[in-house]
Amino acid sequence: MQPDHLAHRGSTPFSFELIHTDRQTGARAGILHTAHGDVPTPVYCPVGTQATVKSLDPRDLAELDTPMILGNTYHLYLRPGADLVERMGGLHAFMGWHRPILTDSGGYQVFSLRDLRQVDDDGVTFRSHIDGSTHRFTPESVVRIQEQLGSDIAMVLDECAEPEDHAYNREALRRTHLWAERCLQAHQRPDQALFGIVQGGIHADLRAQSATHLASLGFPGYAIGGLSVGESKADMHRILRVLNPIMPAAKPRYLMGVGSPEDIVQCVGLGVDMFDCVLATRLARNGAVFTPEGRVNLRNAQFREDSGPIQADCDCYTCRTFTRAYLRHLIIAKEILAARLNTIHNLAFMLRLARDVRQAILEDRFGAFHDGFLTTYQTADARARRANRDAFRASRNADA
Amino acid sequence: MQPDHLAHRGSTPFSFELIHTDRQTGARAGILHTAHGDVPTPVYCPVGTQATVKSLDPRDLAELDTPMILGNTYHLYLRPGADLVERMGGLHAFMGWHRPILTDSGGYQVFSLRDLRQVDDDGVTFRSHIDGSTHRFTPESVVRIQEQLGSDIAMVLDECAEPEDHAYNREALRRTHLWAERCLQAHQRPDQALFGIVQGGIHADLRAQSATHLASLGFPGYAIGGLSVGESKADMHRILRVLNPIMPAAKPRYLMGVGSPEDIVQCVGLGVDMFDCVLATRLARNGAVFTPEGRVNLRNAQFREDSGPIQADCDCYTCRTFTRAYLRHLIIAKEILAARLNTIHNLAFMLRLARDVRQAILEDRFGAFHDGFLTTYQTADARARRANRDAFRASRNADA
Repeated sequence: MQPDHLAHRGSTPFSFELIHTDRQTGARAGILHTAHGDVPTPVYCPVGTQATVKSLDPRDLAELDTPMILGNTYHLYLRPGADLVERMGGLHAFMGWHRPILTDSGGYQVFSLRDLRQVDDDGVTFRSHIDGSTHRFTPESVVRIQEQLGSDIAMVLDECAEPEDHAYNREALRRTHLWAERCLQAHQRPDQALFGIVQGGIHADLRAQSATHLASLGFPGYAIGGLSVGESKADMHRILRVLNPIMPAAKPRYLMGVGSPEDIVQCVGLGVDMFDCVLATRLARNGAVFTPEGRVNLRNAQFREDSGPIQADCDCYTCRTFTRAYLRHLIIAKEILAARLNTIHNLAFMLRLARDVRQAILEDRFGAFHDGFLTTYQTADARARRANRDAFRASRNADA
Repeated sequence: MQPDHLAHRGSTPFSFELIHTDRQTGARAGILHTAHGDVPTPVYCPVGTQATVKSLDPRDLAELDTPMILGNTYHLYLRPGADLVERMGGLHAFMGWHRPILTDSGGYQVFSLRDLRQVDDDGVTFRSHIDGSTHRFTPESVVRIQEQLGSDIAMVLDECAEPEDHAYNREALRRTHLWAERCLQAHQRPDQALFGIVQGGIHADLRAQSATHLASLGFPGYAIGGLSVGESKADMHRILRVLNPIMPAAKPRYLMGVGSPEDIVQCVGLGVDMFDCVLATRLARNGAVFTPEGRVNLRNAQFREDSGPIQADCDCYTCRTFTRAYLRHLIIAKEILAARLNTIHNLAFMLRLARDVRQAILEDRFGAFHDGFLTTYQTADARARRANRDAFRASRNADA
């Protein structure tokens, strides 16, 4: 809700302004200045894979005061195609969203295809998940595609390796660094920032090497890739602790594909400025919504006659207008409106969380905010453990 | 766009005000005064089967200046149940829609179940399409259910017979008339109007008998049921011509389940005041949209790079914001947003058509409007005929 931070700036070159670092924790608050306006950080970016944040329109996103969204290069390249998007005036005009857009490079999706792709030092050949047709990404081609899309922040092509395998990560890192330089060379749009991507799996030595090498190339911002891909939370946090003092303090740090509400709070505490994740929107489509006490699934019978909103103090359209009973009915009746209303709430929750985190940093009370949030917010893991414990106690009592 | 007509009126009893009858054609313009506000007629009601007009929220409907929507008693009775809706404050409160609501009696849906229902003089027993459970509707129960839902206009239980079968229609009509009296007796809510339903298939004698009999019972409005259920358009128009002079002029006439844009224009010309139909919303979800020149399917390859809106002079959110190329992309990519954006346009088209029809009646130029609209609007039938003719000519030329 800081309209001065969201003013359009024409094609001003990208810059990052570090506003404040929390005294106790080192958590950072800043502003990304982009060609389509300013983005306060820490920022959570909803994911708009195929030129739409699933079930929402740009007016919904604006009402939620969404500072920036993410588009997926792999998906947009395949459908409707970067040429078409370019001819339609770029991704902003095509989808009717005139605030900042971030695009990934497509690397993550291509390497997730496993059996459908083959990598060499020059690039990666892959088969489309839609029709099996063969395509090739090179460092130059993904830069070109993202320039056609016209995102405000673009990513280099990287190789995302299995997090555990040290030898494979070392080999992948060699290519990732080679490609990073080629991407920098190829990049031309002055109104678009190209970020480097730190890789290296869960290996501290490789991560440090990657961060140092990329910093020497002088990117305007740095992503951290290859985390939240199956490794433990402890490993993810350990790697972020390694990177925090090494990555350039004056540049934004973007943790790709992360995360849950608790991830945002925890990783901001480890020096991260930017996030994107499908979790909030995907859960919403499955009927699961965020509350300050943790996730709840509105399918549950306990909500059948619940005349309260999802979250009493939430000011989103869904919470202002509809009861849990109505939302549950829409979900059970497989009504398409359920996806939209739940998505509105989950994004309101995530975007408000990012704003609250930022305010706490600006007021040097992020440590207390962090602890308070995590004490109240029961993670799915914690609740599963508690449910197991209760079931165990109940069975013991039944035996007695 | 007549805010004075849409003011809330508390629980004022229902009435119909006939404002003007077009001098040449007899087409009627009026106002339904209901407990939740006024409804200018002719009116087209979007269908909100399961307490939502599929893919839209109440704010969308209000922005479209929707005067009234329809809810389906059969569906709401089964899920979430009329008891639950009543405990949640009625259908208006439950779904967050505070303008008028019309409900059907469930008769049409139950008789559509064919093998899953059994009728007797007291009511009809049927099996749920959801879980196969057995239920029974009687004239009294459907009145009670609609009183629980709290709709502004409710319908009597009727038996919808095969349109061709005279003997079956005569027998069904006997029950329909019996049930109409029992519904009138059972009905209690003073803030809800209960309409009778004229039946009789495509048989002029039965229709005339039904209209005369029901008029003698003194309902505040009359529906015409059992049309647009498989009979020809010519038969439907013939029956409307029979009914037009017989049905009480001072009462509203509601043609249930009709229709397409051309149906609205044609049937207003035959004395109808109210319509509901799923066509506009169902087509939208399949990618087909209305234009003044007829329906187009946005899936077609010709729209791949079409940078224009669906309809150049349409002021709906979809047409103000998005290109045909973008909408086609959403449809091809199976994005949930496509349903909503196309539904917004199709409802804008239908609601504007009803407003334009009304204005033409008020200005005694409905005949010219009717002819002009139908000349420009190419029906699917007409276009199929033209395509066949063109194909025939092409093949003849190829032979020559």
